Amino acid sequence: MTEYSPRMFITFLSDFGLQDDFVGTCHGVIKRIAPEAEIIDITHGIQPQQVLQGALVLANTLPYMPVGVHLAVVDPGVGGSRRPLALQDGEGRLYVGPDNGLLVPAAERFGGISAAHELANPDFALQPVSRTFHGRDLFAPAAAHLSKGLPLPELGPPIAADTLARLDIPKAEVASTRATGRVLYVDRYGNMQLNLAREDLEHIGVSPGMKVEVECRGERYYAIAARAFADVRPGDIILYEDAYRNIAVAISRGSAAEMFAAGAGARVAIRGLSG
Amino acid sequence: MTEYSPRMFITFLSDFGLQDDFVGTCHGVIKRIAPEAEIIDITHGIQPQQVLQGALVLANTLPYMPVGVHLAVVDPGVGGSRRPLALQDGEGRLYVGPDNGLLVPAAERFGGISAAHELANPDFALQPVSRTFHGRDLFAPAAAHLSKGLPLPELGPPIAADTLARLDIPKAEVASTRATGRVLYVDRYGNMQLNLAREDLEHIGVSPGMKVEVECRGERYYAIAARAFADVRPGDIILYEDAYRNIAVAISRGSAAEMFAAGAGARVAIRGLSG
Amino acid sequence: MTEYSPRMFITFLSDFGLQDDFVGTCHGVIKRIAPEAEIIDITHGIQPQQVLQGALVLANTLPYMPVGVHLAVVDPGVGGSRRPLALQDGEGRLYVGPDNGLLVPAAERFGGISAAHELANPDFALQPVSRTFHGRDLFAPAAAHLSKGLPLPELGPPIAADTLARLDIPKAEVASTRATGRVLYVDRYGNMQLNLAREDLEHIGVSPGMKVEVECRGERYYAIAARAFADVRPGDIILYEDAYRNIAVAISRGSAAEMFAAGAGARVAIRGLSG
Repeated sequence: MTEYSPRMFITFLSDFGLQDDFVGTCHGVIKRIAPEAEIIDITHGIQPQQVLQGALVLANTLPYMPVGVHLAVVDPGVGGSRRPLALQDGEGRLYVGPDNGLLVPAAERFGGISAAHELANPDFALQPVSRTFHGRDLFAPAAAHLSKGLPLPELGPPIAADTLARLDIPKAEVASTRATGRVLYVDRYGNMQLNLAREDLEHIGVSPGMKVEVECRGERYYAIAARAFADVRPGDIILYEDAYRNIAVAISRGSAAEMFAAGAGARVAIRGLSG
Repeated sequence: MTEYSPRMFITFLSDFGLQDDFVGTCHGVIKRIAPEAEIIDITHGIQPQQVLQGALVLANTLPYMPVGVHLAVVDPGVGGSRRPLALQDGEGRLYVGPDNGLLVPAAERFGGISAAHELANPDFALQPVSRTFHGRDLFAPAAAHLSKGLPLPELGPPIAADTLARLDIPKAEVASTRATGRVLYVDRYGNMQLNLAREDLEHIGVSPGMKVEVECRGERYYAIAARAFADVRPGDIILYEDAYRNIAVAISRGSAAEMFAAGAGARVAIRGLSG
Repeated sequence: MTEYSPRMFITFLSDFGLQDDFVGTCHGVIKRIAPEAEIIDITHGIQPQQVLQGALVLANTLPYMPVGVHLAVVDPGVGGSRRPLALQDGEGRLYVGPDNGLLVPAAERFGGISAAHELANPDFALQPVSRTFHGRDLFAPAAAHLSKGLPLPELGPPIAADTLARLDIPKAEVASTRATGRVLYVDRYGNMQLNLAREDLEHIGVSPGMKVEVECRGERYYAIAARAFADVRPGDIILYEDAYRNIAVAISRGSAAEMFAAGAGARVAIRGLSG
């Protein structure tokens, strides 16, 4: 029976899509360095260059992933001055990716950043490093070497955690009867994840089974606060706590994002209705 | 050399798509429970909530898969009253998925259902079970535990096979000179799979090389019964036995579904033409 | 610790897409024959039936892949008279795919073709072989058997290398001040890869930092020769050496292919501008 060390798994999240060879090439690079590593593709469908979406999906999904090396590449600044990074969190997970805030929310979910190093050691990169594909030349090789047990400090000099780039995660406004949030991202079904939690709805007096008013882009809609799609009729607008514990707006068997004509960043206000 | 037990492989079919993290999250859940399991993704491109398409693709492809645990999730009733299931077939394959008919045609292809159990044991689910993502919280964990050798009855109480939900698979009408079927599903090339077999065409006197008339949505088209695309010219409409032994309608280097403006469920009538 | 033989890895490239079960079914076939084989999906997003794009992507990416068996299927002639093949190159890599030129540029990059055999031995194919899905019935089984150590000549009779089909790879015209090439393929970002190398630009006096004129489909555009997207402003047209060392045309945070309305095969002329 093969023994699995805690670092053998490499999870991989990016905005590369699956049409081109970018993901497959990174897999090849990892396997040449670390043939025993096992790669779990979290998703490569992050919208191109949407760092915030990538950071939130990474933080949401890591609790469901084996502890290991967590490679993430959403990198509009590739080839510029942003630093390439490896981090460790308080629970022993390792992270590899760009210094643009992508890795931070996940690491903070697991005890915070306990170490940060710049990827600067040419021994653990593909030479020459291209200016446009650091996923292949810097990040995948570093993740592969870490999965084999390379100590983090070998990759390059330490970075003070307070100098790391961080994202502005939009904050919701929760008043006594009205909660106003923003769309964090939209999934393939057109469901819109908001920066609101169940507690925010409870604060404004909304609980499952109630009717609510949803305001978006100047239009008002009636919706139902529900636990599951099975509780409403096809075509109903539904407000529910999704599987990652964000409040989401959806249309049963339809696309909320299409009906509301709203994407990431759009404001959504919610108010309970009596009766 | 690692020894592979017959249950080590988990095949996985769904309508989750690859844009979001749904598939990757289920992979992570499986690997946390069963690090040695090997997952084969049959496809995640089933049209959203098309249970019949999912059931047919599962039944068509399982003969090409290693014997193991067969996880399938196309689940419009998630969060409602439909039961979560694990089945065993007459040849020892195990199935995990919703009780909506999705698993039954595949199991019937391999000797029928020899055991059925409801997924009811909280020890083999992620707690708390969400109301919207049973793939992650119920089905993937059950498949992972089965792949490690968990006996099926540990998952929950037995279910009588005759109480399982079953799908209406549309039946073709085959008269002496005319066969009328329905489109089962459309693939990425726009090829339309019909619920007709080679024997149905033989019954109406159609064999490879003949001209045929295809009627769909009130329009009639000339087509050629052929063995392969290489036998016809670009632009020709072709009627052929596809690789899963369904009769299919295609256009050489084009999209039949687009030209016929027809999707799953559309009626297609076929008649042989002399000479 | 499992020992990895050099042939254990199977890389897989095709135009099958991921919507249907074609890729998953080939994985299943491989795993039934060679449960220990590890499959790396290079990409399945080659444009349908674009053999040249498939050949170029295969040749570009193999240097990043472990040495092993390299399965590639872009096969508009399936079911016709084109031969199914297995090749060996000068460095020991093995290739499986159709005799339509797809495999040749990669093999020539690694020392040329040292052996070629037709897939003709029914013991190493799925019977009956369908006329429309040789990926499943011929190519995947051959790759799986080779990954287990089957000697190449067991698959079928030798083929003289000079009888193999070869692709016309378009040649660029490089004059003293003007280089004219063609678009080889377009990636998901709309970046257009050209059949030009850095040396061609140097020959016409263009180096990073210079302004250039790009002519395509009768229109002229100003562009910047640059090393990375980070060097230009959003919206700028950029001419750069991509990560596979082809010259490419892109628009920073936009789609060049869409703006130029140009796809594979389009002519693109480049001229340096003083100052």
